[in-house]
Amino acid sequence: MPDLGTLLTEISKEMSALTERGKVADYIPELSNVDPAGFAMVVATNDGAVHSVGQIQQLFSIQSVSKVFTLTLALGIHGNAIWKRVGREPSGSAFNSIVLLEHEKGIPRNPFINAGAIAITDMVTAGHEPRETIGEILRFIQFLSGDETIVIDHAVAKSETVTGHRNYALAHYMKSYGNLKGEVDKTLGVYFHQCAIAMNCTQLAMAGRFLAQGGQHPDTGHQVISAERARRVNAIMLTCGHYDGSGDFAFRVGLPAKSGVGGGILAIVPGVASIAVWSPGLNEYGNSLIGTLALERLADAMGWSVFNPQG
Amino acid sequence: MPDLGTLLTEISKEMSALTERGKVADYIPELSNVDPAGFAMVVATNDGAVHSVGQIQQLFSIQSVSKVFTLTLALGIHGNAIWKRVGREPSGSAFNSIVLLEHEKGIPRNPFINAGAIAITDMVTAGHEPRETIGEILRFIQFLSGDETIVIDHAVAKSETVTGHRNYALAHYMKSYGNLKGEVDKTLGVYFHQCAIAMNCTQLAMAGRFLAQGGQHPDTGHQVISAERARRVNAIMLTCGHYDGSGDFAFRVGLPAKSGVGGGILAIVPGVASIAVWSPGLNEYGNSLIGTLALERLADAMGWSVFNPQG
Amino acid sequence: MPDLGTLLTEISKEMSALTERGKVADYIPELSNVDPAGFAMVVATNDGAVHSVGQIQQLFSIQSVSKVFTLTLALGIHGNAIWKRVGREPSGSAFNSIVLLEHEKGIPRNPFINAGAIAITDMVTAGHEPRETIGEILRFIQFLSGDETIVIDHAVAKSETVTGHRNYALAHYMKSYGNLKGEVDKTLGVYFHQCAIAMNCTQLAMAGRFLAQGGQHPDTGHQVISAERARRVNAIMLTCGHYDGSGDFAFRVGLPAKSGVGGGILAIVPGVASIAVWSPGLNEYGNSLIGTLALERLADAMGWSVFNPQG
Amino acid sequence: MPDLGTLLTEISKEMSALTERGKVADYIPELSNVDPAGFAMVVATNDGAVHSVGQIQQLFSIQSVSKVFTLTLALGIHGNAIWKRVGREPSGSAFNSIVLLEHEKGIPRNPFINAGAIAITDMVTAGHEPRETIGEILRFIQFLSGDETIVIDHAVAKSETVTGHRNYALAHYMKSYGNLKGEVDKTLGVYFHQCAIAMNCTQLAMAGRFLAQGGQHPDTGHQVISAERARRVNAIMLTCGHYDGSGDFAFRVGLPAKSGVGGGILAIVPGVASIAVWSPGLNEYGNSLIGTLALERLADAMGWSVFNPQG
Repeated sequence: MPDLGTLLTEISKEMSALTERGKVADYIPELSNVDPAGFAMVVATNDGAVHSVGQIQQLFSIQSVSKVFTLTLALGIHGNAIWKRVGREPSGSAFNSIVLLEHEKGIPRNPFINAGAIAITDMVTAGHEPRETIGEILRFIQFLSGDETIVIDHAVAKSETVTGHRNYALAHYMKSYGNLKGEVDKTLGVYFHQCAIAMNCTQLAMAGRFLAQGGQHPDTGHQVISAERARRVNAIMLTCGHYDGSGDFAFRVGLPAKSGVGGGILAIVPGVASIAVWSPGLNEYGNSLIGTLALERLADAMGWSVFNPQG
Repeated sequence: MPDLGTLLTEISKEMSALTERGKVADYIPELSNVDPAGFAMVVATNDGAVHSVGQIQQLFSIQSVSKVFTLTLALGIHGNAIWKRVGREPSGSAFNSIVLLEHEKGIPRNPFINAGAIAITDMVTAGHEPRETIGEILRFIQFLSGDETIVIDHAVAKSETVTGHRNYALAHYMKSYGNLKGEVDKTLGVYFHQCAIAMNCTQLAMAGRFLAQGGQHPDTGHQVISAERARRVNAIMLTCGHYDGSGDFAFRVGLPAKSGVGGGILAIVPGVASIAVWSPGLNEYGNSLIGTLALERLADAMGWSVFNPQG
Repeated sequence: MPDLGTLLTEISKEMSALTERGKVADYIPELSNVDPAGFAMVVATNDGAVHSVGQIQQLFSIQSVSKVFTLTLALGIHGNAIWKRVGREPSGSAFNSIVLLEHEKGIPRNPFINAGAIAITDMVTAGHEPRETIGEILRFIQFLSGDETIVIDHAVAKSETVTGHRNYALAHYMKSYGNLKGEVDKTLGVYFHQCAIAMNCTQLAMAGRFLAQGGQHPDTGHQVISAERARRVNAIMLTCGHYDGSGDFAFRVGLPAKSGVGGGILAIVPGVASIAVWSPGLNEYGNSLIGTLALERLADAMGWSVFNPQG
Repeated sequence: MPDLGTLLTEISKEMSALTERGKVADYIPELSNVDPAGFAMVVATNDGAVHSVGQIQQLFSIQSVSKVFTLTLALGIHGNAIWKRVGREPSGSAFNSIVLLEHEKGIPRNPFINAGAIAITDMVTAGHEPRETIGEILRFIQFLSGDETIVIDHAVAKSETVTGHRNYALAHYMKSYGNLKGEVDKTLGVYFHQCAIAMNCTQLAMAGRFLAQGGQHPDTGHQVISAERARRVNAIMLTCGHYDGSGDFAFRVGLPAKSGVGGGILAIVPGVASIAVWSPGLNEYGNSLIGTLALERLADAMGWSVFNPQG
């Protein structure tokens, strides 16, 4: 097996040579002001080592990667009751599609398309003020990564609030079916802030470690969620983590992973490592183009696919 | 880890106690004349051991499980060129839906929904007489399982030919988009015969071994497909193997698997075992109800999920 | 040809004998507190006569019937430019469906489904305060009917504002595509108030006269819209006036007409008469069940179908 | 009112000056070998006069215009029972879409989309040999037009049989839902032959006269269908006669009409005239581009819209 540090350096070089780098998200100014050449990759292995390459201090908006953490929170608060309000099937549709929501009467297909993530946020928010819930989500991510310096980029959150009409449509639509308990403005307020959390790749890789370690926090030994639930979050990441590019990602990379339009991807090698990669240019499905290629290269070189023979 | 033989006996008892057993497929007489209480399960581990329980000599129609073997054949013949004519994304739709086919101009979402499997069969058939191709598919499965007694149930094939109007619709529809090269009757002739192959659970578990062993035939050492392709077939089985119940199966069982309306399921534990289970009653998605429960129970007891920590 | 007064009396008797009366809209309390036995019908013929039967003083919420008047206003203000932002095709979908809106990138199929009507209201509102536009719409309807006592039921408007999540979803969705210029709250404020206008059947029949008279106001001689535009509004009423029940209404009744969930229908016999009917129970498409039957009976007896031989 | 003969000459000149003439159907060679400059228009008024202009002897394939005649036949044979197997709503979809058919379980939206027309042909064929039914349809059209020289273009019928995979898909799909009684090959055999009937504009205008005259054959006085049914066929022509361009046609022209991909359109002015127009270039919806413009011009000049004030 190759040396991880050497391999990451190689991958970084290969990636920097690529000229087709995708399209940076530009629906809000805060996301578009990013260098398309940016790249970072961090691997936190279960033995406690951290290998990294690239702009590992560069903060980016985690956006939909946050859905992994709120799903984990919701499972902790409400357990399997969450599956009454959200499914766990790949949607076969774009991240912000409203079509299936009509066919399925307000029950989103899975927790990782926008509608499903808004429903999950609504569950986490239930009975609390938005400010409290935003704080709880932020502290949870700080706890997972062991880094209290993580903050929310309020300019991003504000821009999303002003321009997020598609998300307002999804939320009102679910509310019309009774599948949103809180007020639309409040639930979306929380949702936009969780998406606006700014992290660097080191922080993100650290925050994902519990999913590589059977639900256990490696620093504290605390069982964040049960091993069974950690496995199931991994399953949903694999089948639904890249919207209508999930099947392709599973085919090429073969790891549970969740992407965000900020260019970040969190990928899990169960029992082995938590990986964060960032590169802001997106492919046609809204997933990091270079990030996906880097993960494919890394997984291939290391033999890291859940579909490879184990043991 | 529990003793496999003892565990299978326990599972069999638990399953026989269940009263809700699903609905046996009844669209052709040959499939409906089956005892709903039927059950068998066989585990062929990579060390060469075979553990089994139930009616392991009972033949059943493998139906859509055959799609795994024709996909493997097509990859061997045409390589990655097959992905020009069929996708690898979960469809989010029923196995026989034609809706996405219209939206996507005749390119089926994946090789495991009916339309995709018909396209794959068309690729395998290309330039050959149906009779030859049927023979080739049958011999391939005999070779994989190491059992030359496997045959086609011609009564089933004939019934499907007479009643399979939905499949005719899918085939003609693809042909209207130029995504079927052969004549509809010929390609469907092959398709109906591959689905009508009759196997018992032992034969099916044996036939799946190469997918648990990195593409290698354990009896001959022959590399059926490359390790990379075996991994990718597993990936597609996980994301697409149970139609619009694939996400739920991944969530609950966490193994690559392919089901058929005859009540059979082939599941793979990469590096560890090939599993066949059969029980004819189907759930709402057209997958074996008891078979799924038995696999969930087995995987849970053995810690066999690709999403569990490995090593 | 039968005497209209006698005929209306007969129809009223027949309708009161029917026991299947549909389902009164109950999504807001103000609409549900209505006697399901209620019925009124008024025919204003082009010679100036008014024939009526039933509870002709009973006010009801005109709801979607208002869309005819705002469409007329928008055509007056913006002319054919409105067709850049809304189509004129039957949708084949329910009144509040959002599916086609996704397929067609925010351009509603026609001005009579909710999304299209909201876009039209947005055009009428452009650059004005909601309060002003609401006043303008109300005065326009007062002018058309020659009755300044017509008012808005503010309790209905308020209830819709609180519960109208589906309409908020449609508006935000269009806004995400740039097809809503005003703020969602303001445009919907106007929309909910126009729907909450309360009229009786006499007022509604009078308000529709211009469409039976080539666009001309019979009291003032004023050309409300050109004859060509009046004809075209009639065409849209016929093809799109009853949502996904429009084809059936055209088949059975054969007149341009627009229904509302308050139980009212405005129907036009070009060159002959304007008809208003009201009965609060709705059929499966959300159109007045008894109102439709009464119109079918009247049109049949009088030979009033645009598809009958004329002259 | 302008002189019809003079008007037709004017229209013909205007049309010949247009350079944008649409796209001639080319899916079979027989349809593509047509001069795009071709144009003819015939108006048969209820007083027995026939006015015409252009290549009025030029035969063209009537294609979907035939659906009007088979619908009339089916109504005569089965009466309102046909509405159990086909709807009468505009589909909002393309002529050959299969999507709604899945949503509505094999019941086509209306008799003028392909699926609905195939179902109607199946009803007309019921219990007869294809050859007999084809003869019956042909004789019916000969009778309506008073012209026994009308024949079927067998080369066109044969080409459609070979290439009509989309129609095979629709037919098999309906059969899978039990909404096709005959064998697919036989029903489609009839369907392809009815579409391949070759007529010139004079013949087509004459064949449509009964719909302008309350269902009565003007030559024989025979009541082809009741006045009520003639009115209803007109209604369906208006709401569904131009596929997803029906609303636009109603808006612009305002007459019941049915188009075919051969470039022909039959339009009815109830009580006044039957009109046939032909020009082979098609617009985006598959309807004759120049034919539609010519009808718009004629209807406008003559005041012939069912939505204009009558009397």
